[in-house]
Amino acid sequence: MNHFAEANHVASAVAPALGNQFIVDLYDCGCERFDDLEWVEGVMVEAAQRAQATIVDVVFHKFSPIGISGIVVISESHLAIHTWPEYRYAAIDVFTCGEILDCEAAIAHLGAAFGARQRSVVKVARGAMEIIKRRTPSNPYLAPTSAG
Amino acid sequence: MNHFAEANHVASAVAPALGNQFIVDLYDCGCERFDDLEWVEGVMVEAAQRAQATIVDVVFHKFSPIGISGIVVISESHLAIHTWPEYRYAAIDVFTCGEILDCEAAIAHLGAAFGARQRSVVKVARGAMEIIKRRTPSNPYLAPTSAG
Repeated sequence: MNHFAEANHVASAVAPALGNQFIVDLYDCGCERFDDLEWVEGVMVEAAQRAQATIVDVVFHKFSPIGISGIVVISESHLAIHTWPEYRYAAIDVFTCGEILDCEAAIAHLGAAFGARQRSVVKVARGAMEIIKRRTPSNPYLAPTSAG
Repeated sequence: MNHFAEANHVASAVAPALGNQFIVDLYDCGCERFDDLEWVEGVMVEAAQRAQATIVDVVFHKFSPIGISGIVVISESHLAIHTWPEYRYAAIDVFTCGEILDCEAAIAHLGAAFGARQRSVVKVARGAMEIIKRRTPSNPYLAPTSAG
């Protein structure tokens, strides 16, 4: 069951866009190392690698008494995670620009690693070209591409 | 005009939840320092401060030839930005847990600072309590709260 199925449909209708953001909710996670900072960081880094992303920076923090927040900055945007071990729940974002990354491989890895028995994945288009072309018909910069 | 108005309605129906994520798209930004790393970082830090968030870490990168990616990790989750100066577009996330933060103040500051002539703001509920209570009726941890 996908609670956000309708939102997914809305997002899909907005393509093409500069980037795509996958909003991943992992519920009822059975993994035993859910509150292990090093393990969670490793899972997220491997997810970025499986997506074929270029990692720029990795920042993870553990909170008291439990809970982890972490970001993997990639050239193509970022992966983010926030965990609530007491609820066996993790909120993950996989945000990428360009079409070359394998986000599905990253998301499959995350679901398997955390042992999620229920998940919700919503794809949201970011930077609708329809709006950009209407609002900024003339390009103020010479360079046609940028990171994001 | 809000391209994601319907998605917003879907998200609103999923409350209560552990967190809220505001997906903010700023189009046709008129600010002159759009590709100034120090300025963008300052704007994002001030947004976190206006939301009354507790800042844990700040990570910003400038890409070649243009474009900035940045994350402000807060105790209550994170703020993230990716910019496409050539399209005068910025993709921003304001992700918070708990009800005490003033996300609207943060988003208003961001829109004004970037001089966005069009914006889309979608609120997405993260960690639906309805699912959590059904999937994990017994709490494996003693501590009732965690960061995220």
